[in-house]
Amino acid sequence: MNFDDAFPEIRRPLAALEVELARVVKNDVRLIPEVGRYLLGGGGKRIRPALAFLTSRAVGLTGPNVVTIGVVLELIHTATLLHDDVVDDGTVRRGQPSANRVFGNAASVLVGDYLYSLASVLLARMGDPRILLMVAEATNAMAEGEVHQLAESYSPSETEDAYLDIIRKKTAALFGAGAWAPTVAGGASEEVQLALHGFGLDLGMAFQLADDVLDYVADDERFAAKRGADFRDGKYTLPAIVALANASPTDHDRIRHLLGGERRGARQLEAIVKLIQRYDGFAYTRARAEACVSSALAGLAVLPRGAGRRALERLARFALARTF
Amino acid sequence: MNFDDAFPEIRRPLAALEVELARVVKNDVRLIPEVGRYLLGGGGKRIRPALAFLTSRAVGLTGPNVVTIGVVLELIHTATLLHDDVVDDGTVRRGQPSANRVFGNAASVLVGDYLYSLASVLLARMGDPRILLMVAEATNAMAEGEVHQLAESYSPSETEDAYLDIIRKKTAALFGAGAWAPTVAGGASEEVQLALHGFGLDLGMAFQLADDVLDYVADDERFAAKRGADFRDGKYTLPAIVALANASPTDHDRIRHLLGGERRGARQLEAIVKLIQRYDGFAYTRARAEACVSSALAGLAVLPRGAGRRALERLARFALARTF
Repeated sequence: MNFDDAFPEIRRPLAALEVELARVVKNDVRLIPEVGRYLLGGGGKRIRPALAFLTSRAVGLTGPNVVTIGVVLELIHTATLLHDDVVDDGTVRRGQPSANRVFGNAASVLVGDYLYSLASVLLARMGDPRILLMVAEATNAMAEGEVHQLAESYSPSETEDAYLDIIRKKTAALFGAGAWAPTVAGGASEEVQLALHGFGLDLGMAFQLADDVLDYVADDERFAAKRGADFRDGKYTLPAIVALANASPTDHDRIRHLLGGERRGARQLEAIVKLIQRYDGFAYTRARAEACVSSALAGLAVLPRGAGRRALERLARFALARTF
Repeated sequence: MNFDDAFPEIRRPLAALEVELARVVKNDVRLIPEVGRYLLGGGGKRIRPALAFLTSRAVGLTGPNVVTIGVVLELIHTATLLHDDVVDDGTVRRGQPSANRVFGNAASVLVGDYLYSLASVLLARMGDPRILLMVAEATNAMAEGEVHQLAESYSPSETEDAYLDIIRKKTAALFGAGAWAPTVAGGASEEVQLALHGFGLDLGMAFQLADDVLDYVADDERFAAKRGADFRDGKYTLPAIVALANASPTDHDRIRHLLGGERRGARQLEAIVKLIQRYDGFAYTRARAEACVSSALAGLAVLPRGAGRRALERLARFALARTF
């Protein structure tokens, strides 16, 4: 299942997005399209553009700005992936060697910078300072969230609140901006603007929390390939934070030793999955994701009933299903 | 000699710049102000803000936008330094251990991203889409120039034209935007806008070319400390490119072996300096820098004679003197 099949109503902007993404990274400096296309062409889910396209439909935004907003979101997201892989010393991304492994850290950092600033150029050409400000603030929040994560997420003293604050910034902020931008460009009411911004934020939170669970327990073929990435990085995400908070002293030590240990292979992964299950870390995280989806759905009440709103409702439920 | 002494007319915005730079990087995520201040407080020359402040005076721009433009330029410049040190695996910056050595590559990449996007936020709040577009294009050009450098500058086949194109993007573009932004914000005529943009570009080229020579032959105490950085990185800058183009077959091989060799210590540095001198690499590069300054000075003819124009003329000559 992919977005094209699940949301035939946005098949056209999704197709236009691919054309535009390939076009905007064209450059005589060949390393730029090489690195750009390696990642942009590499099986990304395009969930952020899909969110913007569905929001555009729901508020009646048409014209070239629809696709531009999608392009900007995907460029920013791709830039963060390039930098994340340098930061985490990643080796695999979407089932293939990560860009830092293929092209080196230097190229990943610099092409990431190129894509970030390209997104700013495209937005500045759109010419709406409100959208520019919101996207700049989201990008700034993402960087802040990443630094916060770097400082906290490798420590067993990380709290649930700190973690939720991190993912609000590093993941949800861009979803929020992506759902909000079309409402501004489409001239929707303040009420609709606010509600859709909240919808994007809720969806982003649900998406990240579902991802945190999948990272440990995915059995779907596509997710299974990259299973355990957070664990191998030694990152405390919500399932581990919750388990640690509820664990007996002995299990508390076990979790800490597994996540902070030198060996974090398949055997250690199975061991920590069992421990997290024992203390309801996955169930708790899933419940939080479900609560975010409920909040997202409630926020849509400001929209008139109809196909546009129903499609956004479907998108919100997808965040939990995550078989796409 | 520093800018405060050389240009007492901009002492106030230069002081306000320091206050603002310290203020804007304040953050509860402590790693952000720690890394930010480490570099922002660390003896930067503030030449880009000085250029913007002197241009502001020359075109009569006053008010908070003057300092904001300076802050934005310095944040972008600082972000590039953070990323450059990761890219070059740098060890020393401004006579102290570079940020990547003190805080790690991950923090340098992410705080760099934070500073870039903070600059976008501040610009978006200023609310002028033209300035946003120009600065975004300059930042994009910088990233393009850096990728171009990564792909070319470690190769003896790099040409003078390619090198000039690289520094036009990686250094001159931001100088151009910095000189231009105050003319737009100050409502100057199209003619003055164009001329000052050209002035900034010329100044940036002169500045970088003078830097390339200094990197090899600095005897001033402050420059001597970081002498040979380009050589140690194995980068072909204009002095080496020119020498290589003019060298006898034997010296051609010597230069290639020195710049491509495994050992690039003090002895090898002295050897390549002699070879570059033999083939007029420094004299040629200095002459190009002087030509850029002449062009910069000629561009100022559109401004009325007076203190504002004279100060910009002095700034242009400083690019060659570089004792500050």
